[in-house]
Amino acid sequence: MTDRAARAIAECRLIATMTEEPGRITRRFLTPPMHAVHAHLRARMEALGMSVHVDAAGNLRGIWQPPDAKHKRLVLGSHIDTVPDAGAFDGVLGVTIALEWVALAQELNLPLAIEVIAFSEEEGVRYGLPYLGSRAVAGRFDPALLTLIDAEGITVDAALRAFGLDPGRIGEAVLCPDAICFVEVHIEQGPLLEAENLCVAAVTAIVGQTRLTLSFTGHANHAGTTPMHLRHDALAAAAEWISAVESLAQRTEGLAATVGRISVEPNVGNVVPGVARVSLDVRHTRDAVRNAAVDELLARAEAIATKRGLTFTRVRQLEQPAVPMDERLTSFLTDAMEAAGFPVKTMPSGAGHDAIVMAGRLPTAMLFLRSPGGISHHPDESVLEEDVEASLLVAREFLHRLAKDIG
Amino acid sequence: MTDRAARAIAECRLIATMTEEPGRITRRFLTPPMHAVHAHLRARMEALGMSVHVDAAGNLRGIWQPPDAKHKRLVLGSHIDTVPDAGAFDGVLGVTIALEWVALAQELNLPLAIEVIAFSEEEGVRYGLPYLGSRAVAGRFDPALLTLIDAEGITVDAALRAFGLDPGRIGEAVLCPDAICFVEVHIEQGPLLEAENLCVAAVTAIVGQTRLTLSFTGHANHAGTTPMHLRHDALAAAAEWISAVESLAQRTEGLAATVGRISVEPNVGNVVPGVARVSLDVRHTRDAVRNAAVDELLARAEAIATKRGLTFTRVRQLEQPAVPMDERLTSFLTDAMEAAGFPVKTMPSGAGHDAIVMAGRLPTAMLFLRSPGGISHHPDESVLEEDVEASLLVAREFLHRLAKDIG
Repeated sequence: MTDRAARAIAECRLIATMTEEPGRITRRFLTPPMHAVHAHLRARMEALGMSVHVDAAGNLRGIWQPPDAKHKRLVLGSHIDTVPDAGAFDGVLGVTIALEWVALAQELNLPLAIEVIAFSEEEGVRYGLPYLGSRAVAGRFDPALLTLIDAEGITVDAALRAFGLDPGRIGEAVLCPDAICFVEVHIEQGPLLEAENLCVAAVTAIVGQTRLTLSFTGHANHAGTTPMHLRHDALAAAAEWISAVESLAQRTEGLAATVGRISVEPNVGNVVPGVARVSLDVRHTRDAVRNAAVDELLARAEAIATKRGLTFTRVRQLEQPAVPMDERLTSFLTDAMEAAGFPVKTMPSGAGHDAIVMAGRLPTAMLFLRSPGGISHHPDESVLEEDVEASLLVAREFLHRLAKDIG
Repeated sequence: MTDRAARAIAECRLIATMTEEPGRITRRFLTPPMHAVHAHLRARMEALGMSVHVDAAGNLRGIWQPPDAKHKRLVLGSHIDTVPDAGAFDGVLGVTIALEWVALAQELNLPLAIEVIAFSEEEGVRYGLPYLGSRAVAGRFDPALLTLIDAEGITVDAALRAFGLDPGRIGEAVLCPDAICFVEVHIEQGPLLEAENLCVAAVTAIVGQTRLTLSFTGHANHAGTTPMHLRHDALAAAAEWISAVESLAQRTEGLAATVGRISVEPNVGNVVPGVARVSLDVRHTRDAVRNAAVDELLARAEAIATKRGLTFTRVRQLEQPAVPMDERLTSFLTDAMEAAGFPVKTMPSGAGHDAIVMAGRLPTAMLFLRSPGGISHHPDESVLEEDVEASLLVAREFLHRLAKDIG
């Protein structure tokens, strides 16, 4: 397993050299380096005896079918596009590890077909909308998406054609009926497993998310001539509210609430702020908890504004329900952890993944690997060889259980 | 007095038409409309029998000397430069009212010489440094100031010459030894008198001021994948501290403390802020109170940073001591208020004025007039005729007292 783990990591480092920007890892949907990645992964898949094709949405798909008979199909995969100036493991590691799963299944002679998908687009960088690849695989690619345009004015339709694909055949990218479940292996992209000194975790759900922008409007006044009791300070109001956001999240199990953006007018040192605009990002695995938190924070903002003689407005920008992972499939993962001798750990995913889209189509589970330093979307992103090895020991147990369950 | 008040206001409205920018009131140091203002005020002064000249720093100076004998000289005045897109009364009203004081002194046949100074520069707009006019009058004009350059690359020296002045004679602008005290009449530029339904107030002191920039540095992290207990959120730290600033100022009599500016990195809704930079502006009439407040707030910032695992740095940008007004001269003003039938009101000035510089040379007092809506440095800046009239009723009593004291 140590050699397998080392190989999965080395493959990521190699694929990282296939980039739009020399010296930085940047690989957007359907850009030229995608051809190089496809060529490399195709060779690896074919060496494993898989049949390989690129579907009309640009997903590279390799299928391992045991020679004896037709079997139910486990689908594995993750994305191979990246954010600008990315690390080497976000997405790609889920593909290189999936190929090791195939090799394991072959060694164990399991009665199980496996499809490995290298999704073409997950980050939403080029077209401002994520999951373009998995939408096609899940049969949820709205043809209207073909008219989206990137920063250079190129439509999705034109980009697909330029890549050598036929947008008219995206409907054929949908999973075949033999597919029974989807598993995505991904780095955690957060600090939790490191903080708990754990290698891997099964994901319980991908959190739901609400994003809002709030504005507090008071009066801009001279900082020297306006006594404290006659002020209507928008930043002081926002500060009181930001503390309330943090406090509620700390008191509510599993809630993440973040004010990441703030702007103030006129934003001058000697003028009492007249307007403060802040963002709010709230996430939880249970929609009811998230909605209650948002309601409470909006009521709190209203109360703070009223108390201070300010006005308060808000704009809701995103409302995305939580996506639970399949309980049975996830229990195979936790059973496998235990059987492989690792502590059983489950956790939510605070970030979105292709698994969100795939879960709408078939039972889906995710396996997280520790992110050293919690670092992701950054060149310093890394993964430990021992954690990749642990994930493969878990995979072996998982594959046994799944094959048995199917048989 | 009603006619005098109406005239002082009408003169301001007229002078407001002498501007660099049609439709907006903008009149910087030594710009062409200053010639028009000088011509207008010179005619008014000469009509009052005053001898008039422009000193080498561009200050217009009119001197009334009673015909019978040489008398001690009361100095009055304020500035005639403006901020961009200004109101009509900031500074200018102190000059047009001063001319009414001269007329009053003449009517009352007081044994008192009066010099009215229309200061050339107080706002610091053109050269980034305020009080250029009053520095010359107070004998504190450092010749190095002649090399300051404006946005067009013009030095103070060149601007003075272009205006027809001789920079080599700035030393001669200093007050003559007959001058015994300085009184500046100015709009409050704040909301206090309006809130207390008062016309006028005597100024006790011009507040001292400390300005700092503080930085809280934590770690930028993914808002979805970083649980609350593993965050080092720089904005949450800054928010806690901003609330502490407001709370201390509210608890400390006469303290004004303002966070007017904030910037956050990366300032993105779904990223926990890694850096937050904030400004701090602290003002009080007593330097000891101000210094203690600054010390307490810095200690609080340090404690908040330590508690949260952040680092904290600060840069001190301004440290300006308070300037008390002359107690005896101010008592003449408050006695005059009482004699004229107005409530005795004293208050600090939270903004700077030429009186700061003049107070370093001779006993100085200030009389504030209510600012409707607290509005200043804005086209909506105004003044009530009844308040100007009240100030003139106070002036009459004040002049009596001063003349008697001198005599």
